[in-house]
Amino acid sequence: MDLTRDAAAALDDVDPLAGFRVRFAGTEDDGPDRLLYLDGNSLGRLPRETPAAVARVVEQQWGEGLVGSWAHWIGEATRLGDALADGVLGARAGEVLVGDSTSVNLYKLLEAGARGRPDRDVLVCTADDFPTDRYVVAGVAAARGMTVREIPADIDEGLDLGMLAAALDDRVAVVVLSAVAYRSGALADLAAVTRLVHDAGALVLWDLSHAAGAVPVDLTSVDADLAVGCTYKYLNGGPGAPAFLYVRRDLQEGLRSPIQGWFGQRDQFEMGPVYEPAAGIERFGVGTPPVLGMAAVDVGIGLVADAGIERLAAKGRALCELMAALGQAWLAPHGVALASPRDPARRGSHLTFAHPQAWQLTQALIDRAVVPDFRTPDRVRLGPAPLYTRFVDVWDAMARFREVLETGAHEGYPAERARVT
Amino acid sequence: MDLTRDAAAALDDVDPLAGFRVRFAGTEDDGPDRLLYLDGNSLGRLPRETPAAVARVVEQQWGEGLVGSWAHWIGEATRLGDALADGVLGARAGEVLVGDSTSVNLYKLLEAGARGRPDRDVLVCTADDFPTDRYVVAGVAAARGMTVREIPADIDEGLDLGMLAAALDDRVAVVVLSAVAYRSGALADLAAVTRLVHDAGALVLWDLSHAAGAVPVDLTSVDADLAVGCTYKYLNGGPGAPAFLYVRRDLQEGLRSPIQGWFGQRDQFEMGPVYEPAAGIERFGVGTPPVLGMAAVDVGIGLVADAGIERLAAKGRALCELMAALGQAWLAPHGVALASPRDPARRGSHLTFAHPQAWQLTQALIDRAVVPDFRTPDRVRLGPAPLYTRFVDVWDAMARFREVLETGAHEGYPAERARVT
Repeated sequence: MDLTRDAAAALDDVDPLAGFRVRFAGTEDDGPDRLLYLDGNSLGRLPRETPAAVARVVEQQWGEGLVGSWAHWIGEATRLGDALADGVLGARAGEVLVGDSTSVNLYKLLEAGARGRPDRDVLVCTADDFPTDRYVVAGVAAARGMTVREIPADIDEGLDLGMLAAALDDRVAVVVLSAVAYRSGALADLAAVTRLVHDAGALVLWDLSHAAGAVPVDLTSVDADLAVGCTYKYLNGGPGAPAFLYVRRDLQEGLRSPIQGWFGQRDQFEMGPVYEPAAGIERFGVGTPPVLGMAAVDVGIGLVADAGIERLAAKGRALCELMAALGQAWLAPHGVALASPRDPARRGSHLTFAHPQAWQLTQALIDRAVVPDFRTPDRVRLGPAPLYTRFVDVWDAMARFREVLETGAHEGYPAERARVT
Repeated sequence: MDLTRDAAAALDDVDPLAGFRVRFAGTEDDGPDRLLYLDGNSLGRLPRETPAAVARVVEQQWGEGLVGSWAHWIGEATRLGDALADGVLGARAGEVLVGDSTSVNLYKLLEAGARGRPDRDVLVCTADDFPTDRYVVAGVAAARGMTVREIPADIDEGLDLGMLAAALDDRVAVVVLSAVAYRSGALADLAAVTRLVHDAGALVLWDLSHAAGAVPVDLTSVDADLAVGCTYKYLNGGPGAPAFLYVRRDLQEGLRSPIQGWFGQRDQFEMGPVYEPAAGIERFGVGTPPVLGMAAVDVGIGLVADAGIERLAAKGRALCELMAALGQAWLAPHGVALASPRDPARRGSHLTFAHPQAWQLTQALIDRAVVPDFRTPDRVRLGPAPLYTRFVDVWDAMARFREVLETGAHEGYPAERARVT
């Protein structure tokens, strides 16, 4: 690979997604000291259309339309769900619902799945999954008297299918896994995993938070059962944006949410005496959906769908390939090691590097207008979101990273971590 | 009571809260055909400050500050909770958290309360409580093998203390009640109820959705245990705004949320292997909080706190007294009966009227720019939110209501109800 900046610029010249960059706020500065935002895998950038979309909901729909706007809002959770299903997740209409947080959705579907397999008493997850996934699994297991089997996955290389197979038997009710690992960016083989889990008669519940909008997940073609995910990373829905949940169509009738809220009720406004779940995906709704947040999610989904998930994944992979190659050439001599799968086909759209002084390196990079994030205990995570990150942005960020290491600038930062990173 | 329009206008002239009206969008039209919005008990009006506050979060904090703005956002759920506690709920700092929906919060606290009383197997609620409350209670009871005792409350006069007492014994774990009944507006005696429930060794969980911002609930002085509520009614936080939950300080340590999310974890960014609940009210957090929605809630809480809950309650009571008197004089002769407590001291800030053709009356009123809401099966609900409703607005709305009845205009509407009201 040609590691010159000119070669990176040449890749930008032929990038079919290049035109999307200007549709995000903060991309107008093209100077040498510009912000290099490589944390879109934590919080995606603001689409330029979003402020007006939010203002329209606030000022017109709420301010002028008042309660009458519910005629519109009432369908937003499923309308956005259908847009996600079609444009991002490879699912069918009526299988995705937008609302609540990822953690709440995970809880709902995990409880629903466990209740749907009352003869089984084991939940499976990986030892290095995102904390909220592990904590929710532990909470559901404890409350239901179930056992948790943690797969001791390799935190850099991702899920080992052999280890997964060893954890499966006829006691397993639900397997919770991340499609793209939050720390390493390792991409699971969704089809192969689903086959293994189904062979054991269990359900698989995917956390798509780091996958949705970054890689195709093709939920229908892999025959996925359940999934949840967030919209504020690669879907650019904004801080704390409403999350989504997916339940395959044929499973919906047999599963019930543990939280019997009025937005999951059939004939909601009849306000009848007995809870009777709605017929379709709406049965997994709970309370009044977050309308303001959904206005921003709407824009974010639209941009990803316009760009096309295959093109986004291809560019994300190429950005990470460049980053990995520069890391090998420039960072590895300073003891910074790639802590993500070596095989580009096994990665999502972010990479992680390991170094004992990862915290100090992160602070030094932030002070040089490179925004990565730190992940405990010794990782610097870099996510070049393909919608608005250029190859030259990756090149320049890695050059600043190299400069920090060469000058030892990070040595000047205290080792003690602040609470909020 | 003097029922002339001049008398109503005279009440406006001495209204200490009169100045707040102009701080809401849509109040500039003062013509005879203006919109008379009496549904602030369903969705409060848009404060004029809110669009800029939301835009600031979207454009500056998200668009420019990007992920770094979490240094600010991370504290919003408790900062807004403290503002609610101090300015609206009569609770102490560290007892209120903003986030999730009312239904999700109700579920969390009900499960936590039931788990905190493992030797008890009964949940108590009222037969006419808001649907989501009854449904959540039924769901928790079914999952835990508990029994639900429904108090057959008078749906117009509200909770009967004798009937509550009859439902209490040493099998009761948690009692779920609304402080202000959603249909009738009946106001419960929070102190007396709490004493009764405590005498039985149970916990009381208040739904404050129709009370918060309308009447003082004085959670500390009544020694309340648990509470939840919404912010999009009298708190004017916007459609689907984040809800709140309250747990009395001394109970927090002994209760755990059933949904073990990472925002309830001690040392959240350590991302440790085992869930360990945070020390205070934050242990009842779950996922990433809805930042956009919280920006609007912030403004809404501020307005209510500025107005003062005692003044708001006094004005709300006076508005409802005028409405009830006009109803008696103008509507009762047409068979429209007050379906709320007669005693003003037993009411919140909305009234309900019963008529067999309530659905048609509601449609006729909406077509005459009066916005009430219909409540099944035969109720027209009118909420004169005291922050922006004048006495002359109540007078004019009731005059239009009388005109509908006198002309029989409602007879022209189909009896069949649309799904969304």
